[in-house]
Amino acid sequence: MRDKEFLMIPGPTPTPQSVLLALAKHPIGHRTPEFSQIFADVLEGLRWLFQTKQDVITFASSGSGAMEAAIYNTINPGDKVLCVVGGKFGERWRDIALMKGADVDTIDVEWGKALEISILEEILNEDTAKKIKAVCVTHNETSTGVTNPLKDISEIVNKHGALLIVDAVTSLGAINMPFDEWNIDIAVSGSQKGFMLPPGLGFIALSEKAWKAVDRCNMPSYYFNLKSARKNLLKNTTPYTPAVNLFVALEAALKMMQEEGLENIFKRHARLAACVQSAVPSLGMKLYVEDPCVRSNSISAVCAPEGMNADDFRKAMKKRFDISLAGGQEHLKGKIFRIGHLGFCSDRDILATVSCIEVCLAELGYPVEFGKGSAEAAKVILEYAKEGK
Amino acid sequence: MRDKEFLMIPGPTPTPQSVLLALAKHPIGHRTPEFSQIFADVLEGLRWLFQTKQDVITFASSGSGAMEAAIYNTINPGDKVLCVVGGKFGERWRDIALMKGADVDTIDVEWGKALEISILEEILNEDTAKKIKAVCVTHNETSTGVTNPLKDISEIVNKHGALLIVDAVTSLGAINMPFDEWNIDIAVSGSQKGFMLPPGLGFIALSEKAWKAVDRCNMPSYYFNLKSARKNLLKNTTPYTPAVNLFVALEAALKMMQEEGLENIFKRHARLAACVQSAVPSLGMKLYVEDPCVRSNSISAVCAPEGMNADDFRKAMKKRFDISLAGGQEHLKGKIFRIGHLGFCSDRDILATVSCIEVCLAELGYPVEFGKGSAEAAKVILEYAKEGK
Repeated sequence: MRDKEFLMIPGPTPTPQSVLLALAKHPIGHRTPEFSQIFADVLEGLRWLFQTKQDVITFASSGSGAMEAAIYNTINPGDKVLCVVGGKFGERWRDIALMKGADVDTIDVEWGKALEISILEEILNEDTAKKIKAVCVTHNETSTGVTNPLKDISEIVNKHGALLIVDAVTSLGAINMPFDEWNIDIAVSGSQKGFMLPPGLGFIALSEKAWKAVDRCNMPSYYFNLKSARKNLLKNTTPYTPAVNLFVALEAALKMMQEEGLENIFKRHARLAACVQSAVPSLGMKLYVEDPCVRSNSISAVCAPEGMNADDFRKAMKKRFDISLAGGQEHLKGKIFRIGHLGFCSDRDILATVSCIEVCLAELGYPVEFGKGSAEAAKVILEYAKEGK
Repeated sequence: MRDKEFLMIPGPTPTPQSVLLALAKHPIGHRTPEFSQIFADVLEGLRWLFQTKQDVITFASSGSGAMEAAIYNTINPGDKVLCVVGGKFGERWRDIALMKGADVDTIDVEWGKALEISILEEILNEDTAKKIKAVCVTHNETSTGVTNPLKDISEIVNKHGALLIVDAVTSLGAINMPFDEWNIDIAVSGSQKGFMLPPGLGFIALSEKAWKAVDRCNMPSYYFNLKSARKNLLKNTTPYTPAVNLFVALEAALKMMQEEGLENIFKRHARLAACVQSAVPSLGMKLYVEDPCVRSNSISAVCAPEGMNADDFRKAMKKRFDISLAGGQEHLKGKIFRIGHLGFCSDRDILATVSCIEVCLAELGYPVEFGKGSAEAAKVILEYAKEGK
């Protein structure tokens, strides 16, 4: 059967029909009052989503483009940058900063663990000369399913005075991240995650302090140039041709999100994560992240049972049920699989996925008690309903 | 009446229904055999369109992103770069090269004129020390409607040995530009032009010589990194999340283009341009480009009649007929309007546009003989039909 594929990966995520139909509308000219109106609506929606009064810049790019924008516009060659590296996306901050010629220090966090606040605190306390210009962290590390304690991180970084640069690619629109309230300096995201959109748009929000760093920056990228982007934003337009259709689809997606409400979106993601994370152990598998307190609400990493190659299991799920799961990255390849539960994802999707996992485990010869996983998930759904969540 | 807008601008250009429907298909995972197959098909299609055996890299970006990729991956700070500047897009080459820290020389060409080959020849002949590392030109200058003599330019640049870097944004898929045969080193384009797609994809093709320059380059962009893009291309994938839906739509668009055939596409654009450029003088207006030999086949710039603000005329065309025309840029604002006739554009569209121009001219009080413009266009269509074009 065709066209029944189901994405339980951390991006691209499921996309609502209304968003796809908006995407298919014929493009309009981007230097028109009509487009400027869409741009203005979208900008308001993005401010709402980032929980900020600041300008949010949209690029025709993936989220990695927005990550480049963050570093290339605020860091000068030779500047000291501290990167928290606890997974593949933490490594990306380090790699971008190195390519820009920064003097990069890292805090290497074991994969599957969150940053220990005391380590960051110690390093920043020791930096009395304030050499560290920026601290780059990953809010939700997609490669491991860990959510870092961003609020606490922000307090410490703010006390020091460095810029706090945050990868919010798989947290924004899934996990609470009040940009202004938490005094974040830069946050970046991408469209194919919590946004419920196909890939092709990168987002970046900056605090007043971050904009001042932009002013001091030499040789930013040409395309990812925040100064010219902001200058054009004030006229409700972009310096270069925007991805018009994705903008129109973004307007539709933001409208859906606003109808659901931020609080409800965060509650739903918490519930979906709780369902998955309760069900997995009952299926005889371990969650990759041991500490329940730092497990992500948008993605769960699952260790393949002894003797199983996680990628074989993923293939079985794809073949039997047309469900896409994500694999492990780098040294975790074949060892874990990752279930994305962010964006346009419902209780029903989780129950379906858990039941399908049971069937595939049994089919591959692993001991499974049918219905046990979905019973755990069902219990969570009803518990949350009782608490009005 | 809604949804009857018609784009006669040089991008976004009209998009076929089949391409829009492909765009609206639910995204698939980009790290899957299904996406790799699409990637491979698209790559073959791009090679066909660029008329090259080389790899063609696709970025989630606008064409300007691909322009940045061209410079940032091949030019080192301090390298001498010669930019031909005869309009807004020639200026863009200069600006990108300056931002990368290159030592930029320009050949300033009067707007509306093509590059005089002898000037380029003289400069390159004088550079016996071979200090000039690259020559950047605009094949089709969208701001003026001039097509530069690229084949001749290429011969001269190749004799010298510098890299020839070409903005083919509004020429590719409209005007013949055989990348390999003409020994072009780098050509960039964007999806919302001859490709008949919405904006959001940038393209870049490189010769062997250009790839060697990439190997020698320090500090390229992180996102627009050609080395990592090529490494991933060999595995039919991209380093960062591609704009999946635009890729799927691109596959559909390339299929349509291949059904029409390259020769027929170029003939159609030549015919559409001839229609417009024959009709305009009969409407009492002058073409901005005086020399018929360098007028573009993809866009025609028209001088507003004495006393008329071109932007008022454009507004009237939009209001009365829902036809979008492009305005003049920089010092030409209000003085010219530009008719895009590239991509998914037919004889019927030209006849409609010409007739609508007649009505709006009359409505704004300019003397017009109804039917004269469309008669000129009709004659061209029939002449071309007689010659089998």
